[in-house]
Amino acid sequence: RINGQRLWDSLMEMAQIGATQKGGCNRQALTDLDKQGRDLFVKWCEDAGCNVTVDEMGNIFAQRPGTGSKGGPDLPPVLTGSHLDTQPTGGKFDGVYGVLAGLEVIRTLNDANVETAAPVEVAVWTNEEGARFSPAMIGSGVWAGEFDLDYAYARQDKEGNTFGAELERIGYKGQAPAKPRPLAAAFEVHIEQGPILEAEEKTIGVLSGVQGMNWYDLTLIGQPCHAGPSPMEGRRDPFMGLHRILDQLYKLAEEHAPWARATFGDIRVEPGSRNTVPEKLVLAVDLRHPDQKTLDAMDQRFREIAARIAEETGLEHEIREEWRSPAVAFDTKCVEAVRSAVADLGYSNKEMVSGAGHDSVYISRVAPTSMIFVPCEKGLSHNEAENAEPKDLEAGANVLLHAMLKMANP
Amino acid sequence: RINGQRLWDSLMEMAQIGATQKGGCNRQALTDLDKQGRDLFVKWCEDAGCNVTVDEMGNIFAQRPGTGSKGGPDLPPVLTGSHLDTQPTGGKFDGVYGVLAGLEVIRTLNDANVETAAPVEVAVWTNEEGARFSPAMIGSGVWAGEFDLDYAYARQDKEGNTFGAELERIGYKGQAPAKPRPLAAAFEVHIEQGPILEAEEKTIGVLSGVQGMNWYDLTLIGQPCHAGPSPMEGRRDPFMGLHRILDQLYKLAEEHAPWARATFGDIRVEPGSRNTVPEKLVLAVDLRHPDQKTLDAMDQRFREIAARIAEETGLEHEIREEWRSPAVAFDTKCVEAVRSAVADLGYSNKEMVSGAGHDSVYISRVAPTSMIFVPCEKGLSHNEAENAEPKDLEAGANVLLHAMLKMANP
Ligand SMILES: NC(=O)NCCC(=O)O
Ligand SMILES: NC(=O)NCCC(=O)O
Repeated sequence: RINGQRLWDSLMEMAQIGATQKGGCNRQALTDLDKQGRDLFVKWCEDAGCNVTVDEMGNIFAQRPGTGSKGGPDLPPVLTGSHLDTQPTGGKFDGVYGVLAGLEVIRTLNDANVETAAPVEVAVWTNEEGARFSPAMIGSGVWAGEFDLDYAYARQDKEGNTFGAELERIGYKGQAPAKPRPLAAAFEVHIEQGPILEAEEKTIGVLSGVQGMNWYDLTLIGQPCHAGPSPMEGRRDPFMGLHRILDQLYKLAEEHAPWARATFGDIRVEPGSRNTVPEKLVLAVDLRHPDQKTLDAMDQRFREIAARIAEETGLEHEIREEWRSPAVAFDTKCVEAVRSAVADLGYSNKEMVSGAGHDSVYISRVAPTSMIFVPCEKGLSHNEAENAEPKDLEAGANVLLHAMLKMANP
Repeated sequence: RINGQRLWDSLMEMAQIGATQKGGCNRQALTDLDKQGRDLFVKWCEDAGCNVTVDEMGNIFAQRPGTGSKGGPDLPPVLTGSHLDTQPTGGKFDGVYGVLAGLEVIRTLNDANVETAAPVEVAVWTNEEGARFSPAMIGSGVWAGEFDLDYAYARQDKEGNTFGAELERIGYKGQAPAKPRPLAAAFEVHIEQGPILEAEEKTIGVLSGVQGMNWYDLTLIGQPCHAGPSPMEGRRDPFMGLHRILDQLYKLAEEHAPWARATFGDIRVEPGSRNTVPEKLVLAVDLRHPDQKTLDAMDQRFREIAARIAEETGLEHEIREEWRSPAVAFDTKCVEAVRSAVADLGYSNKEMVSGAGHDSVYISRVAPTSMIFVPCEKGLSHNEAENAEPKDLEAGANVLLHAMLKMANP
């Protein structure tokens, strides 16, 4: 069993880096605070006897060596991990928990003097949130071959700083190539970020996959004119199209209830003057569904709705696809390892699909992968009030420990 | 008659300061470019023999002395003027025309060696647009006693620069107190910024007043949560309220068609992350109507709509009143001076009310005031494509000359 108190203390110590007034965390990717968080993690791993390497995407890997196959070569490692970056108004557990639960597994193995055949390894993936640099999960994405390194380095935050320059600035542009090595298995433990486990009073979510998600920028272009003398009739006002498109997209999500999601996290306006009808609105659109066919149908409908309403309101429109992350089914052997770890430990549980994207989405393309969820308070995440019970966090880390041991000692 | 070519040449020379790629102007209040425009105007006035003073709001007054009452003291001046600042994507005529038409009147009097009993004066009012610093018409507003000097100095642009600091920085914080002196009359000539004169093929608008206008910040506060795992059902999403409020406010304007206006020039979102339901939206709302009673009724309905929809969508809301400019009726003697100048000159004309706010709104509180409009192409303003015919601009300046002469030689 892992040490729940130590895990909690580490979480609380890490949460001080970027702590916000409302009790959350603002430790966005590749900021000075992200560097501080990384430095603390690296120090903890070195104290635990791990070999730490950093790749050219700033992904950090901390390995506890295995004993190898009897008389033979080293075995491929069993990996776990998640991310240390947060939303601008994020919580103390999203991502961080998966990283520190991995560290707690290693500390527990050290305490008990347990050796494993395969190495056990904890990863910190860069910029999982996609909040500062879009898209999400770009560290694991480059590593798994989904994105080019140059594409990643060229991503810009709202101030125009590039990912590459910021990575270099904080001193985490490493030497190792960002590409996959053979892995025996990969696991990730995470807070659910939704209300299901809490509502059904289950301790552990056994994940079979991740829903599909599409990100877009919808641009509506009208004709700027004066707020006073310009008659309402002849206006080509992007807000006149916007409100009708929002209405239709919320209805689209309702048609595919309860699983479909439609979210608008950001909007930009030009020129942004009180007494001028805007020339341009750019809306960030996030559409999701666990069933890829349904998500594809939603994508189609979104395009039709935007085109029709833009036409009816005299606007030009453009849909730029920012990111597509198709629905994922996890590796059956890894799912089974989690299932049997939960059974061994006797925790109440539920089989489920993740509503959020995670680094495991990309890792699953190149290695057998699955995930473990624990409940979070009121299902609230991407919110400074994000919270989780120490006993649930402890349970999740115990499941992680047992699942990793199963795969590390085949 | 004024010199139409000289007026046009001065307009085009001024338009080079802050010229945009699309043929418009970006010379926002208290920027370096505003300073360049002011410097050029002051030089022109000094070349024309005027005495130039600058007040503590940066309002510039260029006076051509009068001969005084026979054997008696100086007479109160006849004032004209407008503003040199533009929208971020503004045109070459809005405001600038009124300033340079005033200068052209003085140049014409000089050419003809005409003396007037009362002094003739041209004013440049600071920050009329309200685009960089809200509210609009703050230079004339402080001068006329609508706003305190301290309130004006403390206004901030989007980067947090204050009006007072920027005024000082560009060297236009003058010594003269920003307060009214006795004036015989005040006139302002301006492009219509709407489509009526062009549609009805009239050269001159004889203005009887200005419509009422209200500016608000509507804030909608929800609960940030994750775009993926959070069910649509329980969300408190500011965009869910926003689209319904926009819909209702456009309907409200329709109910009071054809004169009511509802414009949303700006929107801000927090935290502005793609995969997070926003905590907060702040929408700039501009409501107008020429009839003050109707505008008051619209104000009431706006408050009811926002409160009801916020309640129905589980949001908190706040309405901050940014600015109120009640409907204005101009001085009958000044309106009559314009009417008879138009009759003398034989231009086609129409009596009308201004849809836009102008410095004359505030000047009219402390001096007999009225305005003259000329057509602009397709009624387009607050747009880089803003355009006007040289012959119409010439006609407007001739009306200004004759109206001013009537009042300056009583
Ligand atoms: N877990 C998490 O917040 N992931 C970010 C990617 C997403 O938007 O789902
Ligand atoms: N003329 C003009 O653009 N005035 C600004 C004030 C308003 O919004 O009407």
